[in-house]
Amino acid sequence: MALLVEKTSSGREYKVKDLTQADFGRLEIELAEVEMPGLMACRTEFGPSQPFKGAKITGSLHMTIQTAVLIETLTALGAEVRWCSCNIFSTQDHAASAIARDSAAVFAWKGETLQEYWWCTERALDWGPGGAEEEFAKSGKVPDPNSTDNAEFQIVLTIIRDGLKTDPKKYHKMKERLVGVSEETTTGVKRLYQMQIAGTLLFPAINVNDSVTKSKFDNLYGCRHSLPDGLMRATDVMIAGKVAVVAGYGDVGKGCAAALKQAGARVIVTEIDPICALQATMEGLQVLTLEDVVSDADIFVTTTGNKDIIMVDHMRKMKNNAIVCNIGHFDNEIDMLGLETYPGVKKITIKPQTDRWVFPETNTGIIVLAEGRLMNLGCATGHPSFVMSCSFTNQVIAQLELWKEKSTGKYEKKVYVLPKHLDEKVAALHLGKLGARLTKLTPSQAEYISVPAEGPYKPPNYRY
Amino acid sequence: MALLVEKTSSGREYKVKDLTQADFGRLEIELAEVEMPGLMACRTEFGPSQPFKGAKITGSLHMTIQTAVLIETLTALGAEVRWCSCNIFSTQDHAASAIARDSAAVFAWKGETLQEYWWCTERALDWGPGGAEEEFAKSGKVPDPNSTDNAEFQIVLTIIRDGLKTDPKKYHKMKERLVGVSEETTTGVKRLYQMQIAGTLLFPAINVNDSVTKSKFDNLYGCRHSLPDGLMRATDVMIAGKVAVVAGYGDVGKGCAAALKQAGARVIVTEIDPICALQATMEGLQVLTLEDVVSDADIFVTTTGNKDIIMVDHMRKMKNNAIVCNIGHFDNEIDMLGLETYPGVKKITIKPQTDRWVFPETNTGIIVLAEGRLMNLGCATGHPSFVMSCSFTNQVIAQLELWKEKSTGKYEKKVYVLPKHLDEKVAALHLGKLGARLTKLTPSQAEYISVPAEGPYKPPNYRY
Amino acid sequence: MALLVEKTSSGREYKVKDLTQADFGRLEIELAEVEMPGLMACRTEFGPSQPFKGAKITGSLHMTIQTAVLIETLTALGAEVRWCSCNIFSTQDHAASAIARDSAAVFAWKGETLQEYWWCTERALDWGPGGAEEEFAKSGKVPDPNSTDNAEFQIVLTIIRDGLKTDPKKYHKMKERLVGVSEETTTGVKRLYQMQIAGTLLFPAINVNDSVTKSKFDNLYGCRHSLPDGLMRATDVMIAGKVAVVAGYGDVGKGCAAALKQAGARVIVTEIDPICALQATMEGLQVLTLEDVVSDADIFVTTTGNKDIIMVDHMRKMKNNAIVCNIGHFDNEIDMLGLETYPGVKKITIKPQTDRWVFPETNTGIIVLAEGRLMNLGCATGHPSFVMSCSFTNQVIAQLELWKEKSTGKYEKKVYVLPKHLDEKVAALHLGKLGARLTKLTPSQAEYISVPAEGPYKPPNYRY
Amino acid sequence: MALLVEKTSSGREYKVKDLTQADFGRLEIELAEVEMPGLMACRTEFGPSQPFKGAKITGSLHMTIQTAVLIETLTALGAEVRWCSCNIFSTQDHAASAIARDSAAVFAWKGETLQEYWWCTERALDWGPGGAEEEFAKSGKVPDPNSTDNAEFQIVLTIIRDGLKTDPKKYHKMKERLVGVSEETTTGVKRLYQMQIAGTLLFPAINVNDSVTKSKFDNLYGCRHSLPDGLMRATDVMIAGKVAVVAGYGDVGKGCAAALKQAGARVIVTEIDPICALQATMEGLQVLTLEDVVSDADIFVTTTGNKDIIMVDHMRKMKNNAIVCNIGHFDNEIDMLGLETYPGVKKITIKPQTDRWVFPETNTGIIVLAEGRLMNLGCATGHPSFVMSCSFTNQVIAQLELWKEKSTGKYEKKVYVLPKHLDEKVAALHLGKLGARLTKLTPSQAEYISVPAEGPYKPPNYRY
Repeated sequence: MALLVEKTSSGREYKVKDLTQADFGRLEIELAEVEMPGLMACRTEFGPSQPFKGAKITGSLHMTIQTAVLIETLTALGAEVRWCSCNIFSTQDHAASAIARDSAAVFAWKGETLQEYWWCTERALDWGPGGAEEEFAKSGKVPDPNSTDNAEFQIVLTIIRDGLKTDPKKYHKMKERLVGVSEETTTGVKRLYQMQIAGTLLFPAINVNDSVTKSKFDNLYGCRHSLPDGLMRATDVMIAGKVAVVAGYGDVGKGCAAALKQAGARVIVTEIDPICALQATMEGLQVLTLEDVVSDADIFVTTTGNKDIIMVDHMRKMKNNAIVCNIGHFDNEIDMLGLETYPGVKKITIKPQTDRWVFPETNTGIIVLAEGRLMNLGCATGHPSFVMSCSFTNQVIAQLELWKEKSTGKYEKKVYVLPKHLDEKVAALHLGKLGARLTKLTPSQAEYISVPAEGPYKPPNYRY
Repeated sequence: MALLVEKTSSGREYKVKDLTQADFGRLEIELAEVEMPGLMACRTEFGPSQPFKGAKITGSLHMTIQTAVLIETLTALGAEVRWCSCNIFSTQDHAASAIARDSAAVFAWKGETLQEYWWCTERALDWGPGGAEEEFAKSGKVPDPNSTDNAEFQIVLTIIRDGLKTDPKKYHKMKERLVGVSEETTTGVKRLYQMQIAGTLLFPAINVNDSVTKSKFDNLYGCRHSLPDGLMRATDVMIAGKVAVVAGYGDVGKGCAAALKQAGARVIVTEIDPICALQATMEGLQVLTLEDVVSDADIFVTTTGNKDIIMVDHMRKMKNNAIVCNIGHFDNEIDMLGLETYPGVKKITIKPQTDRWVFPETNTGIIVLAEGRLMNLGCATGHPSFVMSCSFTNQVIAQLELWKEKSTGKYEKKVYVLPKHLDEKVAALHLGKLGARLTKLTPSQAEYISVPAEGPYKPPNYRY
Repeated sequence: MALLVEKTSSGREYKVKDLTQADFGRLEIELAEVEMPGLMACRTEFGPSQPFKGAKITGSLHMTIQTAVLIETLTALGAEVRWCSCNIFSTQDHAASAIARDSAAVFAWKGETLQEYWWCTERALDWGPGGAEEEFAKSGKVPDPNSTDNAEFQIVLTIIRDGLKTDPKKYHKMKERLVGVSEETTTGVKRLYQMQIAGTLLFPAINVNDSVTKSKFDNLYGCRHSLPDGLMRATDVMIAGKVAVVAGYGDVGKGCAAALKQAGARVIVTEIDPICALQATMEGLQVLTLEDVVSDADIFVTTTGNKDIIMVDHMRKMKNNAIVCNIGHFDNEIDMLGLETYPGVKKITIKPQTDRWVFPETNTGIIVLAEGRLMNLGCATGHPSFVMSCSFTNQVIAQLELWKEKSTGKYEKKVYVLPKHLDEKVAALHLGKLGARLTKLTPSQAEYISVPAEGPYKPPNYRY
Repeated sequence: MALLVEKTSSGREYKVKDLTQADFGRLEIELAEVEMPGLMACRTEFGPSQPFKGAKITGSLHMTIQTAVLIETLTALGAEVRWCSCNIFSTQDHAASAIARDSAAVFAWKGETLQEYWWCTERALDWGPGGAEEEFAKSGKVPDPNSTDNAEFQIVLTIIRDGLKTDPKKYHKMKERLVGVSEETTTGVKRLYQMQIAGTLLFPAINVNDSVTKSKFDNLYGCRHSLPDGLMRATDVMIAGKVAVVAGYGDVGKGCAAALKQAGARVIVTEIDPICALQATMEGLQVLTLEDVVSDADIFVTTTGNKDIIMVDHMRKMKNNAIVCNIGHFDNEIDMLGLETYPGVKKITIKPQTDRWVFPETNTGIIVLAEGRLMNLGCATGHPSFVMSCSFTNQVIAQLELWKEKSTGKYEKKVYVLPKHLDEKVAALHLGKLGARLTKLTPSQAEYISVPAEGPYKPPNYRY
């Protein structure tokens, strides 16, 4: 794909697979709106006052139908938006097309190369020249792509190097304009906290992941839905009767294990954390090490956010046509490099994002989904609209807060979570759609348990 | 699509969508073989003796990857095979292509018109001229398509009429050659028993549906898998939190209700049979009439095998974007005719097999899947290989029996079920793949419960 | 306990533990009546016409609160009733007392010895002298208790021998008066069919067990309820996290496995029947042999109706405090004789029906419930009223049928099942209590699926 | 029961129901020890160093078999212990007897009156005279029992008043000696935090409830076990098919709802908190208000920790024999006072802790368990040993910490939670018993996710 920015008739930039899919995308966006009451309520509540007037928002988040509803919520509130996906396989092309045509600058398509991916990211961050021009950089030193042997990181360094050659103040200017960041993944948030501790966080950040209505919904119920969806679309395999290994029993792992168990699989969990391990046992799941079961299981799912979970040496020992996939975070949960470089290994693509890798010694193969990247987005369409409405309503609220307080100093260069009453508000916005009716506290009940009658109802450390 | 029979280089007839998909089909067939131990065991056990030598087998059964493995099992045992699908949307084109290219005469593609469908059926039945020519028919009377107002039946009558004009003895000759039939659907079997009672059954039939390893597996566990699969692929809707109505609580309904409940829906069952209704209540499901819940539910699934379950008058009262689909039998479970002819109704195709129908009074719409036909085959890929291996191993055994006994008079023009020891054998062939280990009866235990140590283990009326 | 028959003030015979518990029994009987709509409907429908006028009914069935409601339904319909329990531990003494005081001749208490048990059975069968006296038996030969080494059978033979000494025509006369039998256990029915085949069945029998509303409800849902109930009352053990072995996956085993899985145990099934084994795998249960898991499991439950399932040699290898219990049929599912006679074994009674057996080699012990007899009746109170109402309504209907047709020759000396419309009626009588609402077939729907609009709705071989 | 302290031969004080039950208690304590690996590990690890030497520990906690194992763990570590129950119905008399005879000063029996309850509490707190005698109190003012109309609080004030009359410095001295408190209930902890905020907390407190291994285990999995246990023992009611209302969907409510759903009930949740309500919907549970369902449901369970949840006006509208029970906290969740004083209401005791209350207008009744107090302790035996081992190991660790640091000033007059590594340790101590095997982080993995390889593995706000 030639990496040239295209423009709509109104002059907005974009780069997508095929703009003719915009109509199809629009139809599915309209369906999703009915399923995303939180975002639609934001439009109703905040739209008239245009609180994002003047705000430029860059998003790096799977460019799906649900994200399209998020983007159009941001623009409905007055923002100007540029977007890229955060995964090379997660874009839904019809969603990207509809947004590119109608609403925002999108740079995303399903099946980007790593080069393309980082080009898209650059484009999404590129809001054009900032204010005054600045002096040349004092030192001519630029990043050296050869300083790493991680293929993806080499690409990043190359892009930074080349960008600095063109505009030595590029990232400095970018930072100057940056009001703040909202982040919704467990792994992303972990990095932000590390930067805060190291003193390298250059802007305020709101940790949306740790809203209850995000991590206890999207991570858990989203994956409970999308893991079997991805397995079915990619492989059509019967889950009932199979032995499935879920590596990690955090929120994502809990959702995956529940889905597999309910579908009739026998689920084995691997864990490092004794508390999560004990939770697994209480649900009737066996807790073992990967080594204990590597030759017996039919389906392997990584959910850890860590690296080096399933190594090529494990994969060699698996049963013929064992399925290996990742729904955790980066593709390094599975040792894709080890697999690709295994002497004599043969890769047979069944269909995009479904590959059979055959080992020379045994002539048996394993099925790897989405090249080790997030299988629910690579092989299916990610999480469904309703649960993403919870997550994304948190995002909108976080962005509104950052923008509103951009000059007040309320937020320092730290990581914040949203206050509990907003978390409860997000939940409340989603109850009506499901026909749920809340009970109201009487004043004397509220006093008895020492909470305001209108909430928040729980102490900060409550675990839900 | 021009209805012209094509031929392979070896001269075998076929008509499929796109023969270039054969390689893809072959890859998926190879994956499915690993998941279908019963069929592969038949190849091993019976292949060497070629028991189907000389047999001509016509199949009318969803032309999926799993059916491809069935067809190639039949050919591996010596049969010559012609095939069509039994549903206009259920063909997987890559499966049809691989079979057409490699193994058998196939006439099937996804999205046939009704005319095309019946043309395909004719082709699958057309084994060329039979033995001796016969005299002209005494009466010149042919079927009158105008004698019915059912659009599909008009097409059937037309084809019969036209066929009789060409060859007045066509169906007589067909019957003469017919050794027997094996049938695997609940509805199809019901028709065969009606014909037996009416004395119009012209050949022996084996009721494969009532093998335990068919109806208690394919119908139940197959639908438990493929209903959410179809819902997800067609609509991406979040099932958790929704109210779902399952019409009918037979084996299919039980599988559907289990899947929806496990995915987090609140399931309501409608039933006519008090026993099945009481079963539903014992699983915590509410049993109501459709009228009670038509305005409250989000998802409606018909599983009855009956007609007129969800009428247009019901659909008018549903919530905006309620999903309506059928996984029972014919498309008349849903009143598609009433919907299509509703004054002012508007059909918006989101994507193939996913249509939104908008009513003029309310301007709200409902989502109908697969045009009211089987949604698991129309919107997804049907049942997974493992459970189909159970069903299809029964089919192979039934066909072997019919062919072997074709001249012995063992089977009269009646409907038969397979003996229990064969049913148990089908199950046994599938246990190893799942790592299951059976216990063996000791002689004294066998004597104590009065069964042979090697089975069969249950009385005929045992319900499992 | 001195084996003397007592009499109420009205002269009705009985032998129970403690008549002062009658008030307590009456209160619980009244609660149970609300939960047993089928039996109460029989009283309403049939009570006025007194169809059992003149009928003498002997029952041998666990003398629980639920059975009390059955007995009083029989008496409400005009019968005279004598009753014993069919298990030495299953009587609820307050139930027996209330019935003895108020309604029928009862001979039952919790914790009978085997001698007492068979004495009670004799009393329940003893309706006093029949019509005309008969001549002396020609042969003086009586059963020899020494001809068997089964302790319980020795007692039976002794009682028969002694009875024949007193009245040589005793059983002949009994048979003469016997109109028929209705039997509700899987094992009991099996024996009746064996007698039918052997030509030794001396009376008509109705197989109530194979009513769907019995075997698919009582056996399945009853055990799903009463297995954990028995485990909890006997041992207070936490089921979550434990490894549980369920021997047998018939209806009883299915109910037990479901209960244990849902409570958070990891369940392993042992099976001889490949079909049932494959069903277990489809529910995510591991199928292994007892030998595979005997040292790893925490809870062992037999549900087979067979003998020699868990032998003392298995028990020796179990973990310390492994729980061993039977919910199948006779106490020979567990090798109690082997355990009791194991050299050096020590029995420590924790409380009645909960014994710890310590092996001398390891000084570790296992917990055996209800001395190997039905643990749900020995350690808890058996199945709950609602599901027993289904079973017992079948009993009442069967008894009514036998009595009504006693002189018509309708029933030969064979085993019969109730016709399906009565089975459906039993279900229908239980739906209202649960708020369920049935859908009605339209005439055209009924015609379409070829069933009467008012049922029966399924062919005889339908499995539910 | 005469309120006189008794003494063992060794002179230790006690007051229990019946010391002859001590042998039975000892047997069950020995069984429980096998199920409580955390407590037993504490004995092994800490016993030799006798860290509680000199410590006097008063416990107010349900005097069950599990608590007995806790008490004997404290004494095994060197403590001197006095104990009372914290609920008038929760004592298991055989447990109390065994402890009284063998290990500690116990004042507890099942079925205390409120007067007796507070007398027991006083005795447990009464460690005899402190060090130096103190001067008379300056003010003669004592609490006035007539200042409240809460019957129980009147009793408390009376006891305090009478105690002050005897020893005006009684509570002052008690406070002086008090090193700290560990508290394990949600409600108790809430009070401690209120005291901390109000500045009235007179000692350091460790909040054991908010250890993950307590609140996410005992509250959740404990209630999932003990709710059906209590229902079954009290009423023998069939749960399947019933409509059950669970008031509150916190950890306790989640456990209860799961248990009822799994047993086949249809569960409806009432909630004030939109987040918890949304969680319920995601599990397929309907969320309504009590008013919506009060006339339809069969079983009502309160789990809120709040008051006035089910009022007499609700109870009047319930179905005949609806079951009403509380597993939350105090008996004021159910309006027992309103019920008891309802004009013309009639109380029929079926058996202890199971009462039927009949309303005069309708002559229908409801079944109230444990007089509105905790039904799992009143009607069954509370939570099983294994999960209590988690809770109580936290207690032991908390007590060890308070005692060790009693003079170091580490703990101020605040509420503390245990550090996460101790929480993880508690979990780890329980994994071996269940056969679970943990995975170990490699150094590079630990670095990648920035945690120590040996834990703790999660940030403080992680919700599990």
